[in-house]
Amino acid sequence: MARSIGVSFFPSRSNRYEIPAIREIRAATGDEDTISLDPEDLKAHGYSEWSSTNIDGLPVAVAYPKSTTEVSQIAKICYKYKVPIIPFSGGSSLEGNFSAPYGGVSVDFAYMDQIVQLHQDDMDIVVQPSVSWMELNEELARRQSGLFFPVDPGPSAKIGGMVGTNCSGTNAVRYGTMKDWVINLTVVLADGTVIKTKRRPRKTSAGYNLNSLFVGSEGTLGLVTEITLKLAVVPQEYSVAVVTFPSIRDAASAAAGVMRAGVQVAAMEIMDEIQMRVVNLSGATPFRKWKESPTLFFKFSGTKASVKENIAMVSAIAKAHRGGNFEFAKDEKEQKLLWSARKESLWSMMSMRKEGNEVWSTDVAVPFSRLADIIEISKKEMDDLGLFASILGHIGDGNFHESILYDRNVVGEREKVEACVKNMVTRALEMEGTCTGEHGIGIGKKEALLIEVGPDTLGVMKSIKQALDPLWIMNPGKIMDVPSRI
Amino acid sequence: MARSIGVSFFPSRSNRYEIPAIREIRAATGDEDTISLDPEDLKAHGYSEWSSTNIDGLPVAVAYPKSTTEVSQIAKICYKYKVPIIPFSGGSSLEGNFSAPYGGVSVDFAYMDQIVQLHQDDMDIVVQPSVSWMELNEELARRQSGLFFPVDPGPSAKIGGMVGTNCSGTNAVRYGTMKDWVINLTVVLADGTVIKTKRRPRKTSAGYNLNSLFVGSEGTLGLVTEITLKLAVVPQEYSVAVVTFPSIRDAASAAAGVMRAGVQVAAMEIMDEIQMRVVNLSGATPFRKWKESPTLFFKFSGTKASVKENIAMVSAIAKAHRGGNFEFAKDEKEQKLLWSARKESLWSMMSMRKEGNEVWSTDVAVPFSRLADIIEISKKEMDDLGLFASILGHIGDGNFHESILYDRNVVGEREKVEACVKNMVTRALEMEGTCTGEHGIGIGKKEALLIEVGPDTLGVMKSIKQALDPLWIMNPGKIMDVPSRI
Repeated sequence: MARSIGVSFFPSRSNRYEIPAIREIRAATGDEDTISLDPEDLKAHGYSEWSSTNIDGLPVAVAYPKSTTEVSQIAKICYKYKVPIIPFSGGSSLEGNFSAPYGGVSVDFAYMDQIVQLHQDDMDIVVQPSVSWMELNEELARRQSGLFFPVDPGPSAKIGGMVGTNCSGTNAVRYGTMKDWVINLTVVLADGTVIKTKRRPRKTSAGYNLNSLFVGSEGTLGLVTEITLKLAVVPQEYSVAVVTFPSIRDAASAAAGVMRAGVQVAAMEIMDEIQMRVVNLSGATPFRKWKESPTLFFKFSGTKASVKENIAMVSAIAKAHRGGNFEFAKDEKEQKLLWSARKESLWSMMSMRKEGNEVWSTDVAVPFSRLADIIEISKKEMDDLGLFASILGHIGDGNFHESILYDRNVVGEREKVEACVKNMVTRALEMEGTCTGEHGIGIGKKEALLIEVGPDTLGVMKSIKQALDPLWIMNPGKIMDVPSRI
Repeated sequence: MARSIGVSFFPSRSNRYEIPAIREIRAATGDEDTISLDPEDLKAHGYSEWSSTNIDGLPVAVAYPKSTTEVSQIAKICYKYKVPIIPFSGGSSLEGNFSAPYGGVSVDFAYMDQIVQLHQDDMDIVVQPSVSWMELNEELARRQSGLFFPVDPGPSAKIGGMVGTNCSGTNAVRYGTMKDWVINLTVVLADGTVIKTKRRPRKTSAGYNLNSLFVGSEGTLGLVTEITLKLAVVPQEYSVAVVTFPSIRDAASAAAGVMRAGVQVAAMEIMDEIQMRVVNLSGATPFRKWKESPTLFFKFSGTKASVKENIAMVSAIAKAHRGGNFEFAKDEKEQKLLWSARKESLWSMMSMRKEGNEVWSTDVAVPFSRLADIIEISKKEMDDLGLFASILGHIGDGNFHESILYDRNVVGEREKVEACVKNMVTRALEMEGTCTGEHGIGIGKKEALLIEVGPDTLGVMKSIKQALDPLWIMNPGKIMDVPSRI
């Protein structure tokens, strides 16, 4: 666990103000259980084993609102007492995005998990923040809507948090990221004011694009309480293919060839030889052993003819880049089988942990011509330092994840990991990339963001933050530091 | 011409400050010609025959910077003297977006029209604001890049203005709008500070999405001086098809059927019977007479097999919705011929003008299940008032344009048009739509924006404006009113 980064920054608040605030929230919502002070609950809302960065501090309370009105009441009270507010939904973010360095109230949307309205004819849906994207898709299938929601981050992610981090996943190469699927948001501002960013058109040029401002703002500008999402039509046909390559560079060249040929893949994922070995070792796919080489996983979707044509094109491109063992799924069962290695990758890595082990999982993105370079250099550095790490990437977006296994009890090991991650981020920035393609800044990448965009651009972000949250109570300490004058 | 809306709002500035500012700009850039005071030039930068709203005022000067550095110098001087700055590139916007209600300096990017760098491997390109999207595509073809830029507004539009209004066009149903194609922006802020929103990854979750904030902000937050754009792969194959329908409602149902079937059309446009008649009357397509019925125009693109398949699917759907005369192009010549009616539509309407006539062209967007409703009601209202108006729409986005021909010399005629447009906007908002799908707010739709989003949401926009442009010198009076305390 990393050092605390200033739990005592707002000491007067936690001592003097948080208790009356909690009392007032209970009174306002008319429900004692709106607020929990249970230590286990506080821990579950301030610490995460998934997260690369944890801090010593925890929220002082967890609020469980049941409506936008209650969220607004909570915000008004917290504003009055200057108590920090940290939104929480799936709790699966990786950069300490929901940690509570300044104490305050974690607002857990657990009871706001309803589908409010499906507009099948308009291909959109209104949901509350704690709807899980996987359950949403199950429900859309159950209702035989013929529609689905294509953004696919980690399985436990929920729509509220997905808005917060502007997440994406394997489908992004075909369908884009979270920001591309938001039609409007209901947002509770710092002082409790409730706004709606837009009405319900799929396309608009009316005024500032507040959707895209709140998407990816990690709860630092407001609390998102309702979301209207675009939906996509379920494709007629799917298929999956897997190809191995002698090197990461060959795999990356093949992927670039696919992109430049304009083949519309539904997903294109890379896993390095270590990650393939991890899948084998973990026993996550007991029915088969995978070749332990850099591997590309493809998903195809569309009409029957286009899927067939795309498979043929990708197969030819892969062969031209020394790809071997091209396998494609002949039926749905085989699709699941072939995709299983990709699907189980993170769990496989987590299952490799022994007592005292942790996994640091982080992401960067670069212009995609640079992907092979950065992966090769980063892998070499980790090898040289004797770290066990695997690489997995959304290669069509130039975005990849590095998962590093380490033992926090071995002196200096965490420091090595930190140095590796820092070097990888620096490299990504030198290649005109970004310190995070889909996980967000949270508490873990604030320095990187400053280097990435520079003080003037960060200054613009700070001005916006200051304008919308003058008391800096909305998820303080995330994305940017709290200014010392607050 | 509409009444002035407050040319004298900053009277002290035009009298006392603008002249020294002009002198200083000339000195700073070392070039007398950086600033023009020529009356014709001023008129060309403050008035537009295309625009639905014009005002009496004009800019006091036109600046022609040659670099980001010069733009920054101009901004610094204008900031010092509190002189308004209005960006200008193609000059084809429709809602008075570049008018100068408070005087000030129009910054024309005419000399910043270069392609800075093409990154073919990364499928992106760095351009200056006065690059025309059509010339950009010609150049990409000339360089045999196999890439193109898919956002296609009016032919005279330039990238800078396209960023300003978050424009789109016929390709949006397949490729999205301007905001979806911007990787990063170089922006000169009100005080002359130069920022870059991001580095060059295609995907990022690093901090606030400043790209999407500046895209669509119509120059009210800063001056965009360089743009990195994503590029798309030129499809293997194109085709075009045209189908007529007995009613707008049938055409709209067919279009909805195409969307819900997940057919990936490259464009899907509707033109009503009046617009088809206008094309015939104007002689824009002398080689053929079109049936004067509601008509859908389709573009297809992709691989040979997928284009063929899509044509078959669309043909079947069209027939099921009473579509007739389904024609598809067998070669490139026929494609051009079939698409020509769509392409010439606006020019056809403009050519119908007689002495004293003007065309009011405006757009709204609604959730697409409501498109037939709003078009039918709006058409009926115009008919009842004896107005000559045509409808043309990006039907897959629920977005359509109404072009109304009127004679400004006939007493009460402009007022009728204004009432019709206002009613159409009100109707769009009642249907949960937006007052503009792609033209922006400019000076013409400020009241509509307030109704659309409400005072609290507009308040958030104003806070952002205030934070980034505390003196309100960046294109003042656009999107929102200048507060009286300024």
